Amino acid sequence: MKFVTYRASVEGAARLGVIEGDLVVDVEMLAAGQGEHLPATMLGLIDTGRPGLDTLRACLEAAEGRHKPGSATALANVRLLAPIPRPRKNIFGIGLNYVEHVAESAASLDTSKDLPKQPVVFSKPPTTVIGPGDAIEHNAKMTKQLDWEVELAVIIGTTARRIRREDALAHVFGYSVMIDVSARDNRRAGQWIFSKGMDSYAPFGPCIVTADDIPDPQVLDLWLTVNGVEKQRSNTRHMLFKVDELIADISTGITLEPGDIIASGTPEGVGAGRTPQEWLLPGDVVVGHVQGIGSLRNPVVNSTPEE
Amino acid sequence: MKFVTYRASVEGAARLGVIEGDLVVDVEMLAAGQGEHLPATMLGLIDTGRPGLDTLRACLEAAEGRHKPGSATALANVRLLAPIPRPRKNIFGIGLNYVEHVAESAASLDTSKDLPKQPVVFSKPPTTVIGPGDAIEHNAKMTKQLDWEVELAVIIGTTARRIRREDALAHVFGYSVMIDVSARDNRRAGQWIFSKGMDSYAPFGPCIVTADDIPDPQVLDLWLTVNGVEKQRSNTRHMLFKVDELIADISTGITLEPGDIIASGTPEGVGAGRTPQEWLLPGDVVVGHVQGIGSLRNPVVNSTPEE
Repeated sequence: MKFVTYRASVEGAARLGVIEGDLVVDVEMLAAGQGEHLPATMLGLIDTGRPGLDTLRACLEAAEGRHKPGSATALANVRLLAPIPRPRKNIFGIGLNYVEHVAESAASLDTSKDLPKQPVVFSKPPTTVIGPGDAIEHNAKMTKQLDWEVELAVIIGTTARRIRREDALAHVFGYSVMIDVSARDNRRAGQWIFSKGMDSYAPFGPCIVTADDIPDPQVLDLWLTVNGVEKQRSNTRHMLFKVDELIADISTGITLEPGDIIASGTPEGVGAGRTPQEWLLPGDVVVGHVQGIGSLRNPVVNSTPEE
Repeated sequence: MKFVTYRASVEGAARLGVIEGDLVVDVEMLAAGQGEHLPATMLGLIDTGRPGLDTLRACLEAAEGRHKPGSATALANVRLLAPIPRPRKNIFGIGLNYVEHVAESAASLDTSKDLPKQPVVFSKPPTTVIGPGDAIEHNAKMTKQLDWEVELAVIIGTTARRIRREDALAHVFGYSVMIDVSARDNRRAGQWIFSKGMDSYAPFGPCIVTADDIPDPQVLDLWLTVNGVEKQRSNTRHMLFKVDELIADISTGITLEPGDIIASGTPEGVGAGRTPQEWLLPGDVVVGHVQGIGSLRNPVVNSTPEE
C-alpha cells in the first residue's frame, strides 16, 4: 500500500490517506464508515502495527472502490505533506554508504578514502523535515556550498533492540524518498549535524510504500535532477551497508522505535564531487526519485536574513 | 521554582510536581483545586510559557503551604523520573566546550588541540534519557571505554530562530544536570552519535530549576564523582562558548523549540583524559552535581547480551 499525509483543502487539517488509483482515500473516514477505527495520522497507523494494516486492507476490499464524497479526493487536488510531518526524534542519517560516493567525498571533502568498516551514523533534527513542493531554504550568510543527496528512506514499524540482520527487515514499516540537503561549509570539528541539520534540509515524500510492496529494498534505481539535469543515478544494490545491516547495526546500541526514519545514504554525483563543484542556489529545483516510490520535487528559495 | 517529574507510588502515572520545602506539590491538582488549569507534564508546562508559570505562582501563594492529601507528597517518598522523560527530538550536545577538556581530549582521543572556533554540536536520541537512580547500561560487547561527562543542561522555553546573543537567555525555561555518558571506542568516522547515543547514555535530573532562579548560568560549580571519588570539578565560567552563545549560534541554522535540551559540554577530568585511563564498569556509581540544581546519581549495570 502507498500512504500519504495530505490536506484535502487549503484550510484542512493534515490527514492520513491511502492511494487507490488516482484517488486519496481518507483512512480514518474509510474505517469509520464501516464501523472500524483507524488513526488519522501516519505515526498513529504505524503504532497500530499489523492489525491496523489488516483492518485497512479489509476496509478497502469491502468498499470495492466506492467511496463517499469527502472520504476520497482526487490525488491531483490534494496538497501532499511530508508523510511524517513531525518525526518523534532526529532522523538517522547514514554517511558514505555508496562506494563511489566514498571516493568522491574523499577527493572533495575531508572524509577518508577508505571504506567505512561500520555504518557512519549522524542525525537531522525534526525541524529539517519539509514536504513535497516545500522550499529548501538558502541562507547565503550561512552557506555557499548547498548540496543535494537523494536517498532511500527507511521507516521503522516495530521496536528493534539488538536484533539480528536476518530479522531486521521484519521491523520495517515502509520506504520513502529523502533528500539529505547538506551545507558542506558548515561541518564543525568533523560533526555533520549542523551542515545537514538546518531548517528545511530534509525534503521527505511524496509517500510511504509499505514493505510488503518492496520485498527487496536493494534493487531500486534512484536518481536526482537539478533544474531537469540529471546529477545522480544509481541503484540501492550499490549500498555498502544494506538496509538490514543498518537496522541490525544501529539496534546493537540504540533502540529503534516505530516511526523512526533512517536515510540510508546517497550515491555519487553530489555537487561537492563534481568538477567544477556545483552548488544549489535560489531558483533551482531539485527532484529526487526512488523506483517504486515516486518523485519528490522541491524548489530552493532565498532565506538570507535582511539586516 | 524547581520542577520534577515523579511517581507518587510505584504504580502511579508520571506527574509534574513543583518543590515546596520537603514536599512535591502536584501542579495539575494544585491548579484544579483553585479552579485553574495547568498541565500534568513538564513539556505541557513549558508549552504554556509565562502564563503557566504566573498561574502556578499565584496558586502556590493562594495555597499558603496548605495542600490537600494527594495533591502534595513528601519528596522523600516519591520516585523521581527524568524531568522530561521523553524529549521531542534528540538532545543537542556540545563537545569540547571547556578549555582544559579540549586539551585532555586532544591528548587522549582523536580531537584537535586547537580550541574550536564555533560550538561543536552533536546529538543524543531520546532513547538515551534515564532518570535519577536509573541504570547506565554497560554492554561489554560494545564498549571497553565507557566514560562520564557531567554537564549543565539548558532547557529551551520558547522558539528561537536566528536570535541575537543578547536575546538568547530569554528563551531559556530552566536548567538541569545531565551526564553525557560516552563509549569512547564507538566513534565512527568522527561522528559521535553512536558513542554518545546508546540507550541509557543520558542520565538527566533530578529537577529543572527555572531561569529566574539562575539569573547567571555562568557562575555554577559542577562536579562528578565515581564511587565517591571526585573526578571532575569546575565552574561553568570556564565554558568556551557561553549558554547565550550556544543558543544564538544553533539558532542561526536550526530552530530551537520549547522543550529542547542542550547539554552544554563537560569540563576536564573525564576517564579518557586520566593517567592511566579509567572506565566505568558494572557496579560503579556515578554522581553528577551542578550548583543550585542538585545531584544526579546513577549506577552502572551489566547489560551484556548472553548469547
